[in-house]
Formats: sequence, structure tokens, C-alpha cells
Amino acid sequence: MRIALVAPLAEAVPPKLYGGTERVVCWLAEELVRQGHKVTLFASGGSQTEADLVVCAPQSLRLAGIRDHIGSTLCMLREVRRRADEFDIIHFHVDLLPQALFHDLAHKCLTTLHGRLDQPDTLPLYEAYPEMPLVSISNAQRLPMPANANWLATISHGLPSHVCPFDLEGGDYLAFLGRISPEKRPDRAIEIAKRTGMSLKIAAKVDTADMAYFKAEIEPLLGHSFVEFLGEIDESQKCRFLGKARALLFPIDWPEPFGLVMIEAMSAGTPVIAWRKGSVPEVVTDHVCGVIVDSMEAAVTAVRETAMMSRAAVRAEFEARFTVGRMARNYVAAYRSLLARASSRTDFAAPPSPSTPAWEHPALRAASVNMVRSQASDHSQS
Amino acid sequence: MRIALVAPLAEAVPPKLYGGTERVVCWLAEELVRQGHKVTLFASGGSQTEADLVVCAPQSLRLAGIRDHIGSTLCMLREVRRRADEFDIIHFHVDLLPQALFHDLAHKCLTTLHGRLDQPDTLPLYEAYPEMPLVSISNAQRLPMPANANWLATISHGLPSHVCPFDLEGGDYLAFLGRISPEKRPDRAIEIAKRTGMSLKIAAKVDTADMAYFKAEIEPLLGHSFVEFLGEIDESQKCRFLGKARALLFPIDWPEPFGLVMIEAMSAGTPVIAWRKGSVPEVVTDHVCGVIVDSMEAAVTAVRETAMMSRAAVRAEFEARFTVGRMARNYVAAYRSLLARASSRTDFAAPPSPSTPAWEHPALRAASVNMVRSQASDHSQS
Repeated sequence: MRIALVAPLAEAVPPKLYGGTERVVCWLAEELVRQGHKVTLFASGGSQTEADLVVCAPQSLRLAGIRDHIGSTLCMLREVRRRADEFDIIHFHVDLLPQALFHDLAHKCLTTLHGRLDQPDTLPLYEAYPEMPLVSISNAQRLPMPANANWLATISHGLPSHVCPFDLEGGDYLAFLGRISPEKRPDRAIEIAKRTGMSLKIAAKVDTADMAYFKAEIEPLLGHSFVEFLGEIDESQKCRFLGKARALLFPIDWPEPFGLVMIEAMSAGTPVIAWRKGSVPEVVTDHVCGVIVDSMEAAVTAVRETAMMSRAAVRAEFEARFTVGRMARNYVAAYRSLLARASSRTDFAAPPSPSTPAWEHPALRAASVNMVRSQASDHSQS
Repeated sequence: MRIALVAPLAEAVPPKLYGGTERVVCWLAEELVRQGHKVTLFASGGSQTEADLVVCAPQSLRLAGIRDHIGSTLCMLREVRRRADEFDIIHFHVDLLPQALFHDLAHKCLTTLHGRLDQPDTLPLYEAYPEMPLVSISNAQRLPMPANANWLATISHGLPSHVCPFDLEGGDYLAFLGRISPEKRPDRAIEIAKRTGMSLKIAAKVDTADMAYFKAEIEPLLGHSFVEFLGEIDESQKCRFLGKARALLFPIDWPEPFGLVMIEAMSAGTPVIAWRKGSVPEVVTDHVCGVIVDSMEAAVTAVRETAMMSRAAVRAEFEARFTVGRMARNYVAAYRSLLARASSRTDFAAPPSPSTPAWEHPALRAASVNMVRSQASDHSQS
């Protein structure tokens, strides 16, 4: 199959440091090539891939200091559009813009939504442009979306087996990995360590936007002798960091759409203690590769339980459910079902327009009753 | 003529407080209706107009607390697209997205660019989508743009004669009106007042982004007895504020694309002392409706000169050059020239694609040599 993958330009593919989406696109591209497909990757300069690379920005937008990504992304999409006939399938990993620019090619296009979808800023867009087939990365991620969204599949992320090698022995600390931000709840991780008497290592970057939170809420807690703050670590350090942990703490307080770090830990054989939010129940097989909790007390108990879990069983679960091979096969099946659907329907390219304005969608109504009330009064004036 | 005007959704048309673009769109819509055209205005709820209003968001995005405008704007553009056949001309006042979404209708579309255009974030977009006819609001605004930009006209803003009524007497203070930000140089205004012994009134909002600058650089200067800080003022206060001033200070240090406040002051008969940047030499008729300066010394001298200027002559210059009637007639002429151009050319809808990637444009090269250098090395790797 001739497949175009369209990556975000924010980071190179693969990214040098942080950049979950670009890493997934990187792995998917390599695996699709390995499985015999002709893959073309649209991405920023500095990317390295086995696929045919089309450089759509001189370097990653982060390195170039470009903060507004719209212009660069629209440039890339024009090039994708120009070459659209060369591909059987065009698979977008950027959101919003392809919905508007490729809806007339929806019979051969799809978008994987990598982020949270409960934002009033962007929800109306999906209602207004319902043609584009969508892939969610967890079922939970779909909940806020309009009823007319054109779902093709839910496909969990996967990663190559060698990226986070299995570590039979593990280690004796609790691990927290990711970003320091209120919704990731590093404060809960510190509290768990305190209550269990375990040591905690935190490997996390602090974005500018989260610096005030870090200074006020987290930094004062880092003085405890049982906490070690490592800052941002790179890919190779990360494997060892996860592999040598007793358990990964994932005490989130937001609708996590997937949570790549959970399957990275599982790949290393390290069980996960995670709060029941977003994708967590779909990713963590409870009491096999970790424990799903709803409270601090349950989390403290879970630390003891994970200490007795079989790391081999955790890895086995990873291999059964979260390899890149499985992910790529899922995507190829989705591509085929899309093409089959298109060939059996003649009306696909022109579905009916939504009968009500996008912003009157029930999900938005429920989310912002006050907004809709003032909308009603605005209407009566206009 | 059947004309669609497509306004930003950030503010209502007209806006309640700040919102230069929405105010210009408001005036243009009213005047085109008055001149006998059938005008349809696409705008946010809360807008009030003599044109046919199509509400494209329940309320202004600012009031709704929506910070990412892309989704809502794309929703609006789908509605514009759906109704495109109803209009002879579609006139956009939002940038970037229409270039990508309407380039196949470029024979009847145009975009007025309201902002600064020297940003590496968005410049490649204009190179990649060169079809859309563009209107600049000053000639200076065009300078950073790619050579293949499809310029239709430069059309200065205009405003209705009654908005800032002529004040024959004026008053005895210097006025600074706008935003507190480093590029507006309120510090220069304070220095001018100090050196001339005149009192200065500052009517300006402070955006969150500029709060640190305000606290560090400007607030300490507000203690002087000759400075009065009024905060943000509304439309009716503004007229009196400008009309009762001896002169408006416009000591900018950035490529101002137009500077509406200059013609508002001129409408009131108040001369303008402005630094020679961006649009200033095109707006201020030097020594007639103000003085153009390059230094603090010249600005101090200019204060004495403006005290002797004829306020009636300033108003006359406004009436000759900056009324909304003139602006609307210019736009109608531009619409007609666009339609004539389209009817005389058959190849209009499909101009050649740019031969080099947008980001290789000389303007971008010059603007960021370092970026291009590392781009070259990225290329050799990929």
C-alpha cells in the first residue's frame, strides 16, 4: 500500500527529547516499511526514517523558535495535497487543519487524534467537518466528541520491543516520568513515597507554562531525603530509569488520552500504579501489569502489591498488546476498511451537512451552559 | 454588488472595547450598505450591523474564554464556503486560513491583512499559497512579504466622520492611547512630557503578556505629578480624550501596519507626533496634521510646533484622506478590478506552484540566517 504519514512539525521524527506524537509516528513509519508498504513521511528537517522523507520545514519548529505552527503546517498540507494522487492512504497526525483541507478526499484520508478532546476551543471544528475518518488512541478519549464524528477505530499506541528492554531484576525505587504539571500530580507521587517509606526518583521537564506551579507546589517538596529530582532525561537514560524502578507512579488527574509512559514501563517489566482516569483502565490490566487506584490509601497498598508482581508477566502483557507490530497491523486493517467502505459507497465524499450549528452540539451545551444561555440572548438581538 | 465580509471572531462587530480590525469591518459594512450594496457579515454573536448578519460563534471568542481561535474560524469558513455562490465578492478580514481554504475561488476572494507581516511563523504560508488577492493597509506593511504575493491594492483605513467629532478648541495635555507594550514605547511619551513640562494622560490597557513590562518599566514612571494613568477607556471617552489633547504622541518602535489612533486623533483635529516607523509617513502629512520625528530632541521641538498648528487643517486632511466613504469606494474599486481581472483571464484559478519551498524565500533567509544555515546541514543528513 502507498501510505503517506503526515507528522507534526513541532519536533523532528523521531524527536531529540520530549515529543510523544513524533515518536509514535517514527515507530509506525519504520514498522510499515518493514511490513512491506511504500511509506512517505511528511515531517520537519532533522527527521530520520526508513520511509521516503519529504522535508516540510527546514528544522523542527521548536528548534526554529516558531511558536505559531499554523503557517508551517498549512505549507506542509499544500505539498501533501499536491501529491495526493501518489498515495492510497493519507494518514494525518496533525489535527484540525486536515479536517478542513482534505474533507473532499475523506475516502482515502484519516486522522489519528493524539491529544485530549474535551476543549471547547476545538470541539465545534469536529462537528462542522464530520467527513474525515478519525482514529482514537483510547475509547475514553472519544467521550467529549460530537455524535457525528466519523470514527474508524480505536488503536492503542505500540512501541518496538527493543526500545525499553525487559529488565528482569528491576530495582527499589518508585519512578515518576513526564512533565511537571498540575494534571500529572507529582505531589501525589511524593506523598506515596512518603507514606510507604520508599525512595522516589522524578525525571521530568518543567515547561515555562508550569514553572510557577513547580516553584510554588513541587520544589518545596523536593527537600525530602527520599526524593531525587533528575530533570529532563533522554531516551537512553529513560530505559534504564524505568527498568530499574520497582513501579511507575502515574497519579494523573486529567483525561489522559493514552499515556505512552505506561507501556514503556510495561515493556521494561515495571508495573504501573495509576489513577483511574482517561485511558488508564484500557491500558493497565489490573493486578497483572499494575494496579488501578482511586485514592491515596489504595495507591499505598498498591505499592506493596506491585512489589510481588511478576515482571515477566508484565512484559508478556506488553508483548501481547502493545508492540509496534500490533499497532501497524491495526492501522493497515483500518486503512483497508476505509478503502473498502469508500468503494462500496458513492455518497462518501458528500455527506449531509450538520443540521445545527456546531456550537449547538449537546456536548458543548453541557460543558458550558452559561455560554449557551448568553448565545440565546445574543440571537434574539441579532 | 453582493459582498460577503468575513470578520475575526475574537470580538463582536463592533467590539465592546479594544479591537481595531472588528471596528474597521463594522464601519466598512455600514458604509457599503449605505452605498447600495448587499452586504452579508460573517461574525460572532453580539455583533450589530445594517448588513445581513451570519452568527458564526455564539459570542465573541474573548467573552467565551476561547483562546485558540482556529477551530471556530474553520467552522465559520465552512459556512462561508457553503454559501460562496451567493456572493460576487468574498472579503476576508481573517488571515492565513482563507489562503489555504479558498485559493480555488481566488477570482472572487480577497484578504485584507490587518497585522504586521514580518513574522517568520507565518511568512512561508503566503509564499505557499500565492493565489489569494491581498490588500495591504499601508505600503510599508508589504515590505517583508514574498515577491509572489498577489497584491491588489493598498487601502488606508477610514472612519466615519462622526466617530471622533472635530474639537476646534482642543486642550492642554499630551495624549498616549493604546496598549502598554515595549513596541508602543510609553516610556518615550513620559520622557517627552518631562522634557517639555507638559502634562501627559495615558489611556491604555495592559495585556497579561505585557504585565511584567508594565510593572518593571512603566509603573515606576507613573509617580511623576505630570503623568495621569487612566487605564482602558471606552469609545465615547476616547473621543473626548483625543479631542481635548494638544497632541497625540505615537512614539512607536515597531513596523506599525496602520495605526488607527492616528486618524482618530486627526478626525478630532488633534495633531500627531509620531516616530518614523511602518505606516507613519503614509498616514501623517508632515507639518500639516502632525510631525514625524526620529529622535527625542525632534519630538520635544515638535510639541512646540503642534501647539501652533491649525486644528481645522488637521481635520480637513482627515476628511480628504481618511473617511469611511473613501475607504469603501477604494474597496469597491478593488472588487471591480478583481472581477475584471478574473473575467479577462482563464488561468487565474490555477497559477503555477512556487518552484522553491516557501521557507527558502529570500526574506526568510535574510531574517534568520542562522536558521537557514542549520537547515542546510539538516538537509545533508536527510
